[in-house]
Amino acid sequence: MADPIRVVQYGLGPIGSAIARHVVERRGLTLVGAVDIDPQKVGRDAGEVIGLERPLGFPIRARLSEVLAETSADVAVHSTSSYFKLFKPQITEILEAGLDVVSTAEELSFPWIAHPTEAEEIDAVARRCGKTVLGTGVNPGFLMDTLPITLTAICQSVDHIAVTRVVDASKRRGPFQLKIGAGMTPEAFQEKMATGRMGHVGLRESMDHIADTLGRRLVHYEEHMEPVLAEHPIYTPYVEVKPGQVRGLKQIGRGYTESGEFIVLTFIAALEAGDEQDIILIEGKPDLEVVLRGTNGDLATVAMAVNVIPRVVTAPPGLVTMRDLPPVHYW
Amino acid sequence: MADPIRVVQYGLGPIGSAIARHVVERRGLTLVGAVDIDPQKVGRDAGEVIGLERPLGFPIRARLSEVLAETSADVAVHSTSSYFKLFKPQITEILEAGLDVVSTAEELSFPWIAHPTEAEEIDAVARRCGKTVLGTGVNPGFLMDTLPITLTAICQSVDHIAVTRVVDASKRRGPFQLKIGAGMTPEAFQEKMATGRMGHVGLRESMDHIADTLGRRLVHYEEHMEPVLAEHPIYTPYVEVKPGQVRGLKQIGRGYTESGEFIVLTFIAALEAGDEQDIILIEGKPDLEVVLRGTNGDLATVAMAVNVIPRVVTAPPGLVTMRDLPPVHYW
Repeated sequence: MADPIRVVQYGLGPIGSAIARHVVERRGLTLVGAVDIDPQKVGRDAGEVIGLERPLGFPIRARLSEVLAETSADVAVHSTSSYFKLFKPQITEILEAGLDVVSTAEELSFPWIAHPTEAEEIDAVARRCGKTVLGTGVNPGFLMDTLPITLTAICQSVDHIAVTRVVDASKRRGPFQLKIGAGMTPEAFQEKMATGRMGHVGLRESMDHIADTLGRRLVHYEEHMEPVLAEHPIYTPYVEVKPGQVRGLKQIGRGYTESGEFIVLTFIAALEAGDEQDIILIEGKPDLEVVLRGTNGDLATVAMAVNVIPRVVTAPPGLVTMRDLPPVHYW
Repeated sequence: MADPIRVVQYGLGPIGSAIARHVVERRGLTLVGAVDIDPQKVGRDAGEVIGLERPLGFPIRARLSEVLAETSADVAVHSTSSYFKLFKPQITEILEAGLDVVSTAEELSFPWIAHPTEAEEIDAVARRCGKTVLGTGVNPGFLMDTLPITLTAICQSVDHIAVTRVVDASKRRGPFQLKIGAGMTPEAFQEKMATGRMGHVGLRESMDHIADTLGRRLVHYEEHMEPVLAEHPIYTPYVEVKPGQVRGLKQIGRGYTESGEFIVLTFIAALEAGDEQDIILIEGKPDLEVVLRGTNGDLATVAMAVNVIPRVVTAPPGLVTMRDLPPVHYW
């Protein structure tokens, strides 16, 4: 059997820690280091910080260079921020340190159209370093882009694509419940929404990923977000929602070609959102309807970030997207 | 824009003719020749034979060499037989003529375990000729293998995979209705079944494709087929079924690892089969349930055979399977 792939986890929030735990339990991978800037975490044993019941024998470091002074590594799984402005120097640092990168950064999942300059810069760094970088996750990265793209394989024509994802936030972690506005007043929701740092990041990237892959040019985008309000009190371990307060959000992205609307992506995440499911409707020849249940966002993002590691380690250098890789799968 | 890819259609049964028609209507492809041994077709204009309303200006030829004496070509779409015994010399002939090959031959979709010697022989020919050959279609090729494999990308573990495909043969072409036994007596069905040339070909290949890709070794296979009987008279343009006669078939394949059953694939194709759908159930972490509607087998196989052409033309030489290629998609 081949030597295990040596993994550094970069970023130890809830998702990063879950990825690190999954790396530890997967055959073929070894967690050799972990990076986080949180002073509460730095210096403590990685096993303790990520929530294992045993120590891993190495501490969390504030800087990647400190990790690599103590161990070699093949790949970093990067899970810090959604936004280029924040993650770009981190990705560059990892590539220049000689590691391949799997990132859960939403804006990195398909940046060629929304962030062409930054994408080209990262691509150039990756090629110069001979390393590969991929942004992925369950969404963006799979449900609203890779999977619909994959389904069009059995279509002779594609006229319109609609994907709706319903997430029942009651089953999700605290930061997620807060991120979707649960417990806010409608006014506070509107105010936070106005800052642009609210809700799901990635609708634009998923639309670009689909349209560009299918050879369509989107000439106009619309995004719309609104609060979903509670009609009765809701209590979770993390938040309390009074009637009239926000229990979640509904977000819609539409992409238009010159012939009209081509893609509509709807993301609903709320406490008591009801039946969790993803619905993919492709109008074309033939029309396809695909309904998925069980695509738990946290479990699925962790799985994707880890399952893709062997593909990224063997891919040619550069910034790649999911459409460039053979099917990612459990192994 | 790049020059169109020059396509020869090899085999002009119902599926081959539908592929040829679709090649004609797709931008980026040109149908430059067509091969069939049927004396009723040889010499007639290809447009007429495949069912276009206009001539294409070249005749059906009985041999590929005759086509290539008159035109150059890049790729052949091969659609003749399901079985290695019959298609192997044809595939070899196409590769040695210098063309890449997309084939709808079921046994070619994942032959590495069921037909290792033949697979290695074809792989060797392809490498020697610097050409690529792929077996694909909607099933095998997508619904019972590539798609479940793709879905495991969001799983942290996979314990069991079940796929059920229900095809309402009432909506399908005549040869398909006859192939599934419609109109036979149960006795005639059993007799024909005993010859081994009945029903869906590909359950074994799909099981091997999934298991091998996910790193499991199947140590035991079971296949079972039974007739589905009519309770009332059924009339189609192609066949008449009396009560008690066969209206279709149910076929089940099971694959076992040393730990027990890992895969069960169920294929039901019958007149009046009811709700057409495909159900993929993955037991693991998380459990996934995926239901597809609209995956019409004829439309979908034609679409897949054509959509994959650019992937096959650019793939490295050799015998490849769907798991080796980046996601195939409409373009």
